[in-house]
Amino acid sequence: MDLVVLVPICSIIALLFAVYFSRKVLKMSEGTEKIKEIASSIRVGAKAYLIRQYKGVAIFFAGMFVVLFILSRLDYVSVFVPYAFLTGGFFSGLSGFLGMKIATSANSRTTWACTKSLNSGLRAAFSSGAVMGLVVVGFGLLDLSIWYYILDWYYRALPEAERIVYITSSMLTFGMGASSMALFARVGGGIFTKAADVGADLVGKVEKGIPEDDPRNPAVIADNVGDNVGDVAGLGADLYESYVGSIISSCALAVAAGLGMKGVVIPMLVAAIGVIASVLGTFFVRTGEKASQKMLLRALRKGVYFAAIVIMIAAYFLVVNVLGQEHVGIYFAILSGLIAGIGIGFFAEYFTSSQYKPTRQLAESAQTGSATVIISGISIGMLSTSVPVIIVGISVIASYLLAGGADNFNMGLYGIAISAVGMLSTLGITLATDAYGPVADNAGGIAEMAELESVVRERTDALDSLGNTTAATGKGFAIGSAALTALAFIAAYKDSIELLVKQRGLDFTFDLSIINPQVLIGLFVGGMATFVFAAFAMSSVSKAAGKIVVEVRRQFNEIPGLMEGKAKPDYAACVDICTKASQKELVKIALLGVVSPLAVGLLLGPNGVAGLLAGATTTGFILAVMMANSGGAWDNGKKYIEEGNLGGKGSDAHKAAVVGDTVGDPFKDTAGPAINILIKLMAMVSIVFGMFILTWSIL
Amino acid sequence: MDLVVLVPICSIIALLFAVYFSRKVLKMSEGTEKIKEIASSIRVGAKAYLIRQYKGVAIFFAGMFVVLFILSRLDYVSVFVPYAFLTGGFFSGLSGFLGMKIATSANSRTTWACTKSLNSGLRAAFSSGAVMGLVVVGFGLLDLSIWYYILDWYYRALPEAERIVYITSSMLTFGMGASSMALFARVGGGIFTKAADVGADLVGKVEKGIPEDDPRNPAVIADNVGDNVGDVAGLGADLYESYVGSIISSCALAVAAGLGMKGVVIPMLVAAIGVIASVLGTFFVRTGEKASQKMLLRALRKGVYFAAIVIMIAAYFLVVNVLGQEHVGIYFAILSGLIAGIGIGFFAEYFTSSQYKPTRQLAESAQTGSATVIISGISIGMLSTSVPVIIVGISVIASYLLAGGADNFNMGLYGIAISAVGMLSTLGITLATDAYGPVADNAGGIAEMAELESVVRERTDALDSLGNTTAATGKGFAIGSAALTALAFIAAYKDSIELLVKQRGLDFTFDLSIINPQVLIGLFVGGMATFVFAAFAMSSVSKAAGKIVVEVRRQFNEIPGLMEGKAKPDYAACVDICTKASQKELVKIALLGVVSPLAVGLLLGPNGVAGLLAGATTTGFILAVMMANSGGAWDNGKKYIEEGNLGGKGSDAHKAAVVGDTVGDPFKDTAGPAINILIKLMAMVSIVFGMFILTWSIL
Repeated sequence: MDLVVLVPICSIIALLFAVYFSRKVLKMSEGTEKIKEIASSIRVGAKAYLIRQYKGVAIFFAGMFVVLFILSRLDYVSVFVPYAFLTGGFFSGLSGFLGMKIATSANSRTTWACTKSLNSGLRAAFSSGAVMGLVVVGFGLLDLSIWYYILDWYYRALPEAERIVYITSSMLTFGMGASSMALFARVGGGIFTKAADVGADLVGKVEKGIPEDDPRNPAVIADNVGDNVGDVAGLGADLYESYVGSIISSCALAVAAGLGMKGVVIPMLVAAIGVIASVLGTFFVRTGEKASQKMLLRALRKGVYFAAIVIMIAAYFLVVNVLGQEHVGIYFAILSGLIAGIGIGFFAEYFTSSQYKPTRQLAESAQTGSATVIISGISIGMLSTSVPVIIVGISVIASYLLAGGADNFNMGLYGIAISAVGMLSTLGITLATDAYGPVADNAGGIAEMAELESVVRERTDALDSLGNTTAATGKGFAIGSAALTALAFIAAYKDSIELLVKQRGLDFTFDLSIINPQVLIGLFVGGMATFVFAAFAMSSVSKAAGKIVVEVRRQFNEIPGLMEGKAKPDYAACVDICTKASQKELVKIALLGVVSPLAVGLLLGPNGVAGLLAGATTTGFILAVMMANSGGAWDNGKKYIEEGNLGGKGSDAHKAAVVGDTVGDPFKDTAGPAINILIKLMAMVSIVFGMFILTWSIL
Repeated sequence: MDLVVLVPICSIIALLFAVYFSRKVLKMSEGTEKIKEIASSIRVGAKAYLIRQYKGVAIFFAGMFVVLFILSRLDYVSVFVPYAFLTGGFFSGLSGFLGMKIATSANSRTTWACTKSLNSGLRAAFSSGAVMGLVVVGFGLLDLSIWYYILDWYYRALPEAERIVYITSSMLTFGMGASSMALFARVGGGIFTKAADVGADLVGKVEKGIPEDDPRNPAVIADNVGDNVGDVAGLGADLYESYVGSIISSCALAVAAGLGMKGVVIPMLVAAIGVIASVLGTFFVRTGEKASQKMLLRALRKGVYFAAIVIMIAAYFLVVNVLGQEHVGIYFAILSGLIAGIGIGFFAEYFTSSQYKPTRQLAESAQTGSATVIISGISIGMLSTSVPVIIVGISVIASYLLAGGADNFNMGLYGIAISAVGMLSTLGITLATDAYGPVADNAGGIAEMAELESVVRERTDALDSLGNTTAATGKGFAIGSAALTALAFIAAYKDSIELLVKQRGLDFTFDLSIINPQVLIGLFVGGMATFVFAAFAMSSVSKAAGKIVVEVRRQFNEIPGLMEGKAKPDYAACVDICTKASQKELVKIALLGVVSPLAVGLLLGPNGVAGLLAGATTTGFILAVMMANSGGAWDNGKKYIEEGNLGGKGSDAHKAAVVGDTVGDPFKDTAGPAINILIKLMAMVSIVFGMFILTWSIL
């Protein structure tokens, strides 16, 4: 199958374009000394955070490596697993790190570009986002290619059919490193950013009455660092994991579907096509120098839609040429995923943009106080779960049937899995539009702190507000693909356990019926785990924000002249507090993802584990959508009032809306987007520890 | 099986004791003219509401009757279903109506009794609760007995084995009337009570700064009416349905378990024992005249524990004598349910009482504002889902294995179903302790409005606060039993469809595997439906409360001398607005319960329906626990501050805590407790329309 060679080639192309875009960013001017100084503080803070984070992660990875190494010696997992665990974590972390590195260089340049025009600002911020998008897909495909070739070589003595089974079942266990890293990055970054944000607002805006991003606020640098470590580094690690996970799980189902090696290479090649399409798409993101905000959004959309169309066309020829006309259904499965992703993104925008009714109504409810804002926001979030559930439902059944599930169950499952690959195939460019947001957000902060003229802030605000829209779209997309991938993981889990049972001649058969009590209890526990996870994440933000509040108050009290702008606050102290607090809380959150499948597995057996995964996927998906959309609606409802509606800034309605936004912060940026990682980490742990659970389970 | 005759006998005993307790209440003095006048306003308002509600319900029932009648002619459902639908609805509604009737008579008498002593107040309120508890279990058993005898007579020509199948499969379809009525009563009452409460507080407490239950507040009578129509009539209808549902679903599983008629009578007899035990238990609820609040709680608990112990002993002899020593495992299944219920109740108290850490911490978070209160409350609620999930999980697996599920799958399912009967066997008395709360709450309102001396209000407050604890316990218990019953319903659904397939020689076999896409999509849609339901319920409260706010403001503006206490507000106007608003919103909520199983069934077939039920059960259970406990913690956190902690009444922390309480109101009293009814209504609709779905489903 020589076409596979296209995968590493495309990955290299993606990485080369990432270099190209990052050079482009770095060539731009940073502007005044003041801007440079502020940007440097943010950069130093972000770096300090990541170094600390990686130290903590290194301990976890070292511990897990030892555990996996021992398990591999005891023949519970393949000999490659410990090393694959490390590479997955390494590339996931590296994607986040590089994304953050370029973002912390692009923020000041975006500010300076905004002194020229809105479009220049867009190009600077978007180029930074493109680096991130291309780095993620590039490293994702590179990691996959490397392991594919190693395994193919290692098992070269085996006949093809058997070789594929070994290659895919080994690769299936490789995602755990990426999932672990993603969980740390997403949750740690999420706690950091929201603790800083909430803490800065509670004292600055509410108590002291100074504007957002005011340089007198000691937590302002921490807030800007947070955007980078949470919304950039966390996002990158997260989507790296989604991307690689969706491809691997499709590959793993290819054998059972009877597609053989062709079925293994198709998902990789679809992803490779997507990389090229994304690179091409980035060049469509440009507009006239005097663009309005609406035109900017159209410019971003143009890039994404262009990439989608390229994939739609190229994937058809790929599928028909590789699998033959009789499997054209697989192409339609890919298409259904691609369309579902766009649909989910669109409706996320509907529920969270102040252009539409729900967020408008939310803003109106602010007139009767913060309690009604909260109730409305939660209601909108809950109501908004209906659309993605229906879209995912249609996509699942459509890709199942289109791939031929009615005649061949396993083909249907393969169809579902590959629809997730289709959904994520545009990742290179959708991630670019998503990762551009925090850069614009930072640029606004820098403009404020550097006291640039107000037109600059207006331009960065326009970019930032656009970023909120693309972030909502991106989140819906990430969660939707996670739902599809998780389904594939459950099937892959079953296949992998059955393979083990066959290989080792064990006595176990699955009974995955929902009226099997093991499965049912698993469903309950899985659903509950996502609620407990969200609780942990949110209370961590509360705790960390509380510490920031104390510190900011202390600085205002103890540093003379701070309020008058005559003295400089100690920014580093706040960064340090956020860093420490977020790392401390991470441990129990990560343990939840690792321990729950092990505990359920040991107590209830593999049937219970499958139930756990299904429960976590269904409840978690719904909860994640609700949290993301409630949070988005609160944020934009507040912005809508700030634009001068319903009394504008400073009115009672505005105060009530600020409460909603503050509640929404940990919803949409800490707990919500991390739930999909939790689900996949659970799936990975279940698969990796499959043999262990099979051996030691009491039921 | 002559023992069955005990069932109607016990039901009559329960109803006779209900008469005894209601006479006892009515013999007490109502006190002053002023008290009588206030009580009469509440009574009139509650009656007006219920009449309006029953009119709306009558239309729904008439429509459904016609649909069911046509379906029965077309042979889609048994000929009894339309009539059984009516009786179920009738008795459920009657239970609520009688409970409300006695509660609106007992409130004033409780107030007056509190002028004497705390214990007298307790006796008055508890007697009213006992009427409700005994009416619910009495009518429940009566309805079951009547239909049992009718069906037994109707199918008398059939051989026993076949007769049982027909009797139980017919009875299984009978719960739909009760579920529908319960949904209307619970949600309608829940919207009414919280709209009035929130509306009264928003203008009275927040804008005008007058105390709670101040007679000048035009919404104060509506608020007190709400306690009766929501927390009494709604609660009664709800638990009637849970009670009957749990018994019927056990009966329906008896045949498959191979227990025959003996297995059918056991759940009914366990319930009958529970009735007698509850009657006995009520006599233990008494204490010295100078009792402290702690002693009062102990007095209530004594009654419940006594009843539980009686059941534990009597059920053993029942099971061993009827089923024989070899089926003693069934007894342990009953026991596991009984113990699980007590455990769930205890932990609900832990998470929501200000005696324990979680609510204390919540109260502390009020010091940093309303946003942190909301985040903490949601976190506590989410975290608190872990304990009932684990308890239910243990109870499911224990009752499954104890009943012999390892050897005989259907015996295990029967064990799970009967554990729910065990959990609900003490309902007569636990409901009494629960239904006493709103009476005490009303008594406090009356004391305030009648301007009685402050010691009376202190006593009613003590009773009320105790009522919050028993309500939290009761809610955990209702939700827990619903989870167990719902599992039984899914199994019963499968059996009933398989019976239809066999009877009519159709071609359908279940594939309830969680990796069957139909099941999986069902899981997603079921989980989503509970979120959408909660959103509907909460936004209905918001809308209705908004109308009350407008009306209360209007009255304060337009009625001269109202604020000075010289003029009387127009109480009836507020009652009327709440009544109309709550009825209007009900339609779409009820449709959600009826339409979702039909839509999923027609699109995805019976496998999808089973998935829907499992998804709604698991996600709904978790969501319901979260909403109940978040709400309880917010309420008690606020009360804790009002007791003088953390700055006390009027402090900033108090204001923040009031926001939490206001958000918590629709959580804990509208959406949360209604979710279990939604789940069971879906199950009932699925079963009743089983043949219809089987015939017309496209997949």
